[in-house]
Amino acid sequence: MRKDMSKEVGITALKDKDFSEWYTQVVLKAKLADYAPVKGLMVLRPEGYSIWESLKATFDKKFANAGIRNGFLPVLIPESLLGKEKKHFEGFNPEVFWVTHSGTNKIGDRLALRPTSETLAYTMYSKWIQSWRDLPLKINFWNTALRAEIKATKPFLRTSEFLWQEGHTVHATSNEAQDEVLKILEIYKNTVEEELAIPVNIGRKSEKEKFVGAIYTDTIESVMPDGKALQMGTSHFLGQNFSKPFEVKFADKDNVEHYTWQTSWGVSWRLIGAMIMVHGDDQGLVLPPKVAPIQIVIVPIYKNDTEKKEIISKSEEIKHILEQKDIRVHIDVREEFSMGYKFNDWEMKGVPIRMELGPRDMKNNSIMLAKRYNAEKSNLNFEEIDIIPAILNDIQKMMLENAKTRADSMSRHISDYEEFKKEIENGGFFFAPWCESMDCEENIKKETGADIRVIPFNSEDESKKCMYCQKQSKIIPIFARGY
Amino acid sequence: MRKDMSKEVGITALKDKDFSEWYTQVVLKAKLADYAPVKGLMVLRPEGYSIWESLKATFDKKFANAGIRNGFLPVLIPESLLGKEKKHFEGFNPEVFWVTHSGTNKIGDRLALRPTSETLAYTMYSKWIQSWRDLPLKINFWNTALRAEIKATKPFLRTSEFLWQEGHTVHATSNEAQDEVLKILEIYKNTVEEELAIPVNIGRKSEKEKFVGAIYTDTIESVMPDGKALQMGTSHFLGQNFSKPFEVKFADKDNVEHYTWQTSWGVSWRLIGAMIMVHGDDQGLVLPPKVAPIQIVIVPIYKNDTEKKEIISKSEEIKHILEQKDIRVHIDVREEFSMGYKFNDWEMKGVPIRMELGPRDMKNNSIMLAKRYNAEKSNLNFEEIDIIPAILNDIQKMMLENAKTRADSMSRHISDYEEFKKEIENGGFFFAPWCESMDCEENIKKETGADIRVIPFNSEDESKKCMYCQKQSKIIPIFARGY
Repeated sequence: MRKDMSKEVGITALKDKDFSEWYTQVVLKAKLADYAPVKGLMVLRPEGYSIWESLKATFDKKFANAGIRNGFLPVLIPESLLGKEKKHFEGFNPEVFWVTHSGTNKIGDRLALRPTSETLAYTMYSKWIQSWRDLPLKINFWNTALRAEIKATKPFLRTSEFLWQEGHTVHATSNEAQDEVLKILEIYKNTVEEELAIPVNIGRKSEKEKFVGAIYTDTIESVMPDGKALQMGTSHFLGQNFSKPFEVKFADKDNVEHYTWQTSWGVSWRLIGAMIMVHGDDQGLVLPPKVAPIQIVIVPIYKNDTEKKEIISKSEEIKHILEQKDIRVHIDVREEFSMGYKFNDWEMKGVPIRMELGPRDMKNNSIMLAKRYNAEKSNLNFEEIDIIPAILNDIQKMMLENAKTRADSMSRHISDYEEFKKEIENGGFFFAPWCESMDCEENIKKETGADIRVIPFNSEDESKKCMYCQKQSKIIPIFARGY
Repeated sequence: MRKDMSKEVGITALKDKDFSEWYTQVVLKAKLADYAPVKGLMVLRPEGYSIWESLKATFDKKFANAGIRNGFLPVLIPESLLGKEKKHFEGFNPEVFWVTHSGTNKIGDRLALRPTSETLAYTMYSKWIQSWRDLPLKINFWNTALRAEIKATKPFLRTSEFLWQEGHTVHATSNEAQDEVLKILEIYKNTVEEELAIPVNIGRKSEKEKFVGAIYTDTIESVMPDGKALQMGTSHFLGQNFSKPFEVKFADKDNVEHYTWQTSWGVSWRLIGAMIMVHGDDQGLVLPPKVAPIQIVIVPIYKNDTEKKEIISKSEEIKHILEQKDIRVHIDVREEFSMGYKFNDWEMKGVPIRMELGPRDMKNNSIMLAKRYNAEKSNLNFEEIDIIPAILNDIQKMMLENAKTRADSMSRHISDYEEFKKEIENGGFFFAPWCESMDCEENIKKETGADIRVIPFNSEDESKKCMYCQKQSKIIPIFARGY
């Protein structure tokens, strides 16, 4: 019954040659996700969902420490409510899914599937907040957002429904709200770097690129291996743009009524897409240890029942020791597959460490250890098992270091527009001076396809002239083509 | 700035007198949930959502131990897919919300908001399952279901969108699938009894009451304080009813293709509704310690700054000790509220233990401890703090015991139909012999409003005659009016 399916099930596209096809193959063949029957929609299989669960657990802990609690909002928003903040409505209107009937009954005020929940959350908040005692109010919602995508589906990156969290906080003062915007952005940055081993650029969106309805949007952006930029998370200062139409007001200690100051912020499952792109290779997925559902797979190798008994028993002993150290271990006892198939399978699935244990290893009192991220192999004495947590930490650290090195190599300063036009074809992040005029920004977009992805904090520099119009520039944003 | 709002914010309806109004007040005033702007929809506030999170964590642990992993399914199902299993479709059709447009574009095949995900899950499963190696496949989905409710909204009990989990498993044999149905039902029973302290009756639904599309439905049912029955969770044996139309097939070891055997099962946030109804009292919510977001609230009492400093410091010391024992503790330091307000507030919110710490307690080296569920007060010496976990366990146990006693007092055996017609007006569970004819079942429903809620396992008894038609009866189901 053994079957070597390594050829048919392996990744057949090369990451460097056909990035897009490579990405899709990794997603599907590592069983992270699959296409749903409706165009634009995606199903998450357990291998993929467990990564989301791991991120969720980390965020939940950090949100709780920041005094943020979780709640639930329904998916349906009446059209009249969605239209209450005009710019916001215009921004989302073309992408909204509309419910018009329940059973055979026509619904009067059409219902939108939430593209985001500001309007619904703040309708509730206006009921819940009366006085300064009720502030700050900080609630996060783990749900999905629905925005009809017309372009081809790209799992995790472009789907009409996506898993995300949206946080909505309300404050008595503008300063407190703006502090919250930054506090969240820091949580996003730390989590993406520490858990997913992806370096990010942190800063502000331009006026053109900000969230519709926000005063300003702060963002974290990363460069992908194909040179395109991916927005990894955003944190919006809404000012009083929503509190006024939605009447989110509070009576202060002096009993005078004020409008509140608000923030909203979110990250989505596109973080998983980024992780696949940044770390994956021609063999498939490479998982950072912290989010890997299985951190270590043990593959027992034996030729007869005596060997089998002894080796499986030793594998279970090692598993037990490692699980005591909170390491997630799996023993691959499948007899219907060849060793070659098993090795390829676990490599494709990106498990950080593979351990092989055969008769010779038993004799040497050691185990063969293969690191997924750099294909390094070494023998580890049974007595050295205790250093495994340190090895996993080291892998996590090195994956971030390597990703940083690659991101740096894809980022450069530039000030000549002709050179920029040529270089942008190869992709990457371009730090280029800009005069802050939306005309220049739009012309650059039109002529090169590049957006201002982020204006890094502390990027003030008055020594340069705008790359496009040669007028005085005060800041150096990052330009790139985006996903 | 102190304000005694105990009157205006307290529960004003009596549980015994106006159960429905009492229930709604508890939900709203304990800030568990609120009505959304769309009729029939509900928002969950952090106090309510954290109970759901606690249940979710328990189920996740038990599901994982049973080899079940989580996944994600989108909310939209094409009409053509939903119609593939005919009875199933007819069952849900009147309640389906239909999406007909995205932006201004009309959608060809209308999209249903999932009333349940069998059809979508099994479309995917038919792609994922090829051989016996892929079985069993056991995936659970934490999502919401949408079913348009025409009757008045009742938070947690009757809403057009509700939080739930739906599990879908696939097996090579009928026996294995049926074992899974029971294994899940046991998990449901244990969790509801151990976490929510609600006793359940376990058994099978009648043909009339089973899930549309199932071979049979197993269920857990509880009697509520108003005498009505609440379905607490169901586990369905689907047989091959879905695997045939959806072509969920596998090649066995002999390479012959077979249709699979399937199960589906779910519990929803109505469990929270049951918890409110079963344990709440005229002061408000009463939370079983295991699911209480705050298990112990410490209220420091002081008259001057010297006392304040000493007492807050002692409160923090006690909090620290208890947190080391994984107990969730909150110190209420709000100065804007009176003691009376605070006591009422925490009682309304159902926190299992309130501790009061004032100057006299400090002098006596003790703390005043008030149990929410029975209003019992006692003094606890500072040195006895270690017994707090045992006290919480005892509260949990006693709440289940009390609920069992009340449920027993509301359950009786009956065989005279005239007596039944009279008694059903007072509510309760009635164990009554039945001939297994759907005619009798329907007539009883028509004449009394009572359904067969559950046919308890091992309820075979051939000594009785059908309560309705006097023909031979072999089983004793439970009849009751339901929610």
